[in-house]
Amino acid sequence: MAHGATGKGNDQVRFELSAYAIDPKIKVIAPWRDWDLLSREKLLKYAKEKGIPVDFKSGKKPPYSMDANLLHVSYEGGLLEDPSNQPQDEMWRMTRSINEAPEKPTNLSIEFSKGDPIAVNGKRYKPSQIIEKLNKIGGTHAVGRLDFVENRFIGMKSRGCYETPGGTILIKSHRALESITLDREVVALKDDLMPRYARLIYNGYWFSPERLLIQKLIDESQLHVNGVVKVRLHKGNVIIIGRESKKSSIFDHQISTFEDDKGKYKQSDAEGFIKLHALRLMKNSKRLRSNH
Amino acid sequence: MAHGATGKGNDQVRFELSAYAIDPKIKVIAPWRDWDLLSREKLLKYAKEKGIPVDFKSGKKPPYSMDANLLHVSYEGGLLEDPSNQPQDEMWRMTRSINEAPEKPTNLSIEFSKGDPIAVNGKRYKPSQIIEKLNKIGGTHAVGRLDFVENRFIGMKSRGCYETPGGTILIKSHRALESITLDREVVALKDDLMPRYARLIYNGYWFSPERLLIQKLIDESQLHVNGVVKVRLHKGNVIIIGRESKKSSIFDHQISTFEDDKGKYKQSDAEGFIKLHALRLMKNSKRLRSNH
Amino acid sequence: MAHGATGKGNDQVRFELSAYAIDPKIKVIAPWRDWDLLSREKLLKYAKEKGIPVDFKSGKKPPYSMDANLLHVSYEGGLLEDPSNQPQDEMWRMTRSINEAPEKPTNLSIEFSKGDPIAVNGKRYKPSQIIEKLNKIGGTHAVGRLDFVENRFIGMKSRGCYETPGGTILIKSHRALESITLDREVVALKDDLMPRYARLIYNGYWFSPERLLIQKLIDESQLHVNGVVKVRLHKGNVIIIGRESKKSSIFDHQISTFEDDKGKYKQSDAEGFIKLHALRLMKNSKRLRSNH
Amino acid sequence: MAHGATGKGNDQVRFELSAYAIDPKIKVIAPWRDWDLLSREKLLKYAKEKGIPVDFKSGKKPPYSMDANLLHVSYEGGLLEDPSNQPQDEMWRMTRSINEAPEKPTNLSIEFSKGDPIAVNGKRYKPSQIIEKLNKIGGTHAVGRLDFVENRFIGMKSRGCYETPGGTILIKSHRALESITLDREVVALKDDLMPRYARLIYNGYWFSPERLLIQKLIDESQLHVNGVVKVRLHKGNVIIIGRESKKSSIFDHQISTFEDDKGKYKQSDAEGFIKLHALRLMKNSKRLRSNH
Repeated sequence: MAHGATGKGNDQVRFELSAYAIDPKIKVIAPWRDWDLLSREKLLKYAKEKGIPVDFKSGKKPPYSMDANLLHVSYEGGLLEDPSNQPQDEMWRMTRSINEAPEKPTNLSIEFSKGDPIAVNGKRYKPSQIIEKLNKIGGTHAVGRLDFVENRFIGMKSRGCYETPGGTILIKSHRALESITLDREVVALKDDLMPRYARLIYNGYWFSPERLLIQKLIDESQLHVNGVVKVRLHKGNVIIIGRESKKSSIFDHQISTFEDDKGKYKQSDAEGFIKLHALRLMKNSKRLRSNH
Repeated sequence: MAHGATGKGNDQVRFELSAYAIDPKIKVIAPWRDWDLLSREKLLKYAKEKGIPVDFKSGKKPPYSMDANLLHVSYEGGLLEDPSNQPQDEMWRMTRSINEAPEKPTNLSIEFSKGDPIAVNGKRYKPSQIIEKLNKIGGTHAVGRLDFVENRFIGMKSRGCYETPGGTILIKSHRALESITLDREVVALKDDLMPRYARLIYNGYWFSPERLLIQKLIDESQLHVNGVVKVRLHKGNVIIIGRESKKSSIFDHQISTFEDDKGKYKQSDAEGFIKLHALRLMKNSKRLRSNH
Repeated sequence: MAHGATGKGNDQVRFELSAYAIDPKIKVIAPWRDWDLLSREKLLKYAKEKGIPVDFKSGKKPPYSMDANLLHVSYEGGLLEDPSNQPQDEMWRMTRSINEAPEKPTNLSIEFSKGDPIAVNGKRYKPSQIIEKLNKIGGTHAVGRLDFVENRFIGMKSRGCYETPGGTILIKSHRALESITLDREVVALKDDLMPRYARLIYNGYWFSPERLLIQKLIDESQLHVNGVVKVRLHKGNVIIIGRESKKSSIFDHQISTFEDDKGKYKQSDAEGFIKLHALRLMKNSKRLRSNH
Repeated sequence: MAHGATGKGNDQVRFELSAYAIDPKIKVIAPWRDWDLLSREKLLKYAKEKGIPVDFKSGKKPPYSMDANLLHVSYEGGLLEDPSNQPQDEMWRMTRSINEAPEKPTNLSIEFSKGDPIAVNGKRYKPSQIIEKLNKIGGTHAVGRLDFVENRFIGMKSRGCYETPGGTILIKSHRALESITLDREVVALKDDLMPRYARLIYNGYWFSPERLLIQKLIDESQLHVNGVVKVRLHKGNVIIIGRESKKSSIFDHQISTFEDDKGKYKQSDAEGFIKLHALRLMKNSKRLRSNH
């Protein structure tokens, strides 16, 4: 496998860990890191000598590097290397600015089955189509710009800007549906594992046994995440305006109501609940008092 | 201690766990839960009989209950009990709607010392003043509306809407400053403990020994969180436009640059780094192959 | 469901949470807790009046309570209520004392398939037979006595003594086999979730969705835990004397050897590995120095 | 800094991460890894040429490598490289075998202050003296042999045998004292962080900011770990025979008793406690039923 990632970034790690995991006998060639092409000038000179065409207007150095795929555009380097600098307005490609976004919001409905989005506004699409669709409409409404300082696996901090309108809409909608379909302690378990899962993927461990184990747990947790979320896009905001799950909701309005619940919940149970949870706190408190 | 919380909510738990933790001999009186005042009508009748004034226009039932303090307003009950209903525009008190928010953004600078906000736009304020100030300006820009389904400690799901403009600005600014002042693994540790810490507080365990232990760790982590964050408020969005920490930043632009780094980072080190991290993945991969 | 557990212990919680989880409509009758039979004397009097036979010699109060099943015997109460008291030698039922155990050790081999024990000394048995067998031989060798102070879910500490010879042998053997068949990060993930999983079961949440999710992860992790462990029982000790897994081991003696490894591992890779892991520590160190 | 660790082990990582953390400008010289001294023969030849004396009888290769310090002896390599081989009896240096250990047990008392051992049998000693003392008496009683397969940070599994009699006695005694002095949720928090803390130290991150943060939490947790533990050493076993803490115990025998508790605990509180904990399980159960 040959790749053009530098020796400073996350991409080399992600490419190579994945390659080694899939084929332990693979040989990796990473010229940017292994050879003496350490600067952009040397690289361009080498390409010219060998007759390799480069899609890059010589003479004009762009103010940052850029990568794009279905899910996002990322920007790094150049002006962005100083985290006290704001990115230039012209940089962004997938999203309008807040000022350019329409005054009128757009409402969408997104349907999920087992945690995966399957339909937008009642019409079924392939996963890639859903992302394309949400990227487009989200971008129009200035949704999905991110700007932060991250911690690369190889040990340095770096500043990156990202655009991911579809991803932003999906993560918020998905959580809204989880909020009525996942049990409290399932949510707690997912919350506790989420940063670890995210770090695994960020660091290049998609094809690792530990990622697969957490995935099993997550996939199992999603079996009940079925239903429809209504969402409003407006001036950079993704606003949940409704969640509904006919067959999978465990939200029980008859229990939670402050009105007459017809005995579904016995308020006096709360006394014992609280008293037994307080037992150890009372004991701790007595010790603190007696030691002073 | 007497309180007016119902037997269905989180407040009773928070009040009573705190009271028992502070004074194990305290006696709790919770009429709403212990007596037979289970409905609003009965309560009003009782108050009238006893000559207790109630700040509540009889005859007109509000469509939800409301609580407010320095940090937030919360709304629950009534219309909101169905999570597929959108809250009415008239409900919100601290924040303008996106449409009413000004076209022109406001830029702020917030200074932090040891993780605590101490100044806005270069002027020092008391903590409560900072929150008041940010509530006001954030609210004007439609910042800080939240709407979600939560999981009460006593076992039921409930839907709540919240307004917390100042809190929203502070959490985003604080994280932005942490991104240049906290070590990667310190961030990872904080990320992993954060949901647990939040659950402790949500469930009423502020005065518990386990909250105090995590607090020690968090407080220690904040010693280097010093610096200034520039933030833009615009149409419901909080946008970080700069982070700076003269004495505490560990962001090193000379290492992360894609330009000539003058030997501060040796790209070839990455090869060994990746190969040793791949070692176990390769071994796993060989086992999978030999077993098929 | 009627049960005879007291209102102070874990059993009532385990019985009732399980019952409610299996059948939400079940009605629980717990006389010891609900009625006025709060002391042993009252209970015996009630039983006598109603003609209920009690397997309990009146007039002679045993110095502790006892429960037994296939996996263990537990002892609580009476003399044991003071954690500074040692249990009496006569108390223990499944295990000999160290002095009574034979001078000569016994060696066993235990075979596991997908993490479950399936054979002892090369002969296959049903799970219950394996535990019976190991209880017997372990007990003879004084293996499996436990004595500790635990934290009941209902909020108090209590002291318990346990005998579980088979369980003790199995947990040690199983971990020995995992040590050559589980990937390092799989072990780390299991280690991190283990205390939580144990608390869930201790607290009565066997039939909870969160236990089932963790179980999915654990079950998946066990697919490669196949092989044979040789174990020596001697004077209370369980000593691992060999682990072997023909098809599932990822222990690679050719890599780990301090002898000539024929190039399977390139020692110079370690330099880059360490340097990049040190990068953030160096940066932290510089900050500490410059701030003093 | 020059060190003689190989390029395959944990020691190089621990030495160098610590050195870089303490002095980012340090230069590391690791001949075994960097030069061409990859085999023992080459190393001996080099030493002979340069007139460097080697404490190692040439001609007789020991069957494993060995390291020793105050806390332990470790054995690796040679015969031990195959995890199905049992170590030879002659290998062990700090501990007698079970057969050689005395028939008569020895009872000890160990006093802890803020989690640290300060006295043995009522006599105060320096920390190093306590370990020496416990190593000696523990070793006599065959306590402290360990034999397992571990996961090196640089990516391979390796088999190691260890002797740490004093460490074994201290860890068991310390936990016994914690069991009556630490709150349940403090124990849970410590249990959950313990594997991570252990990995940090194993991997060489003693001088890391994340280790220091967890240390703060642990140190704070130990303020109440004061008292005396009585322990019996017998034929390889460390048996807790008593725990006592005059001023710091939160074990409350008057609450946990199965006898008359004089109203310190209201058994009927347990009903509400269980019912509210069952609420979400009942809801989950109903969903499962209605979906089948």
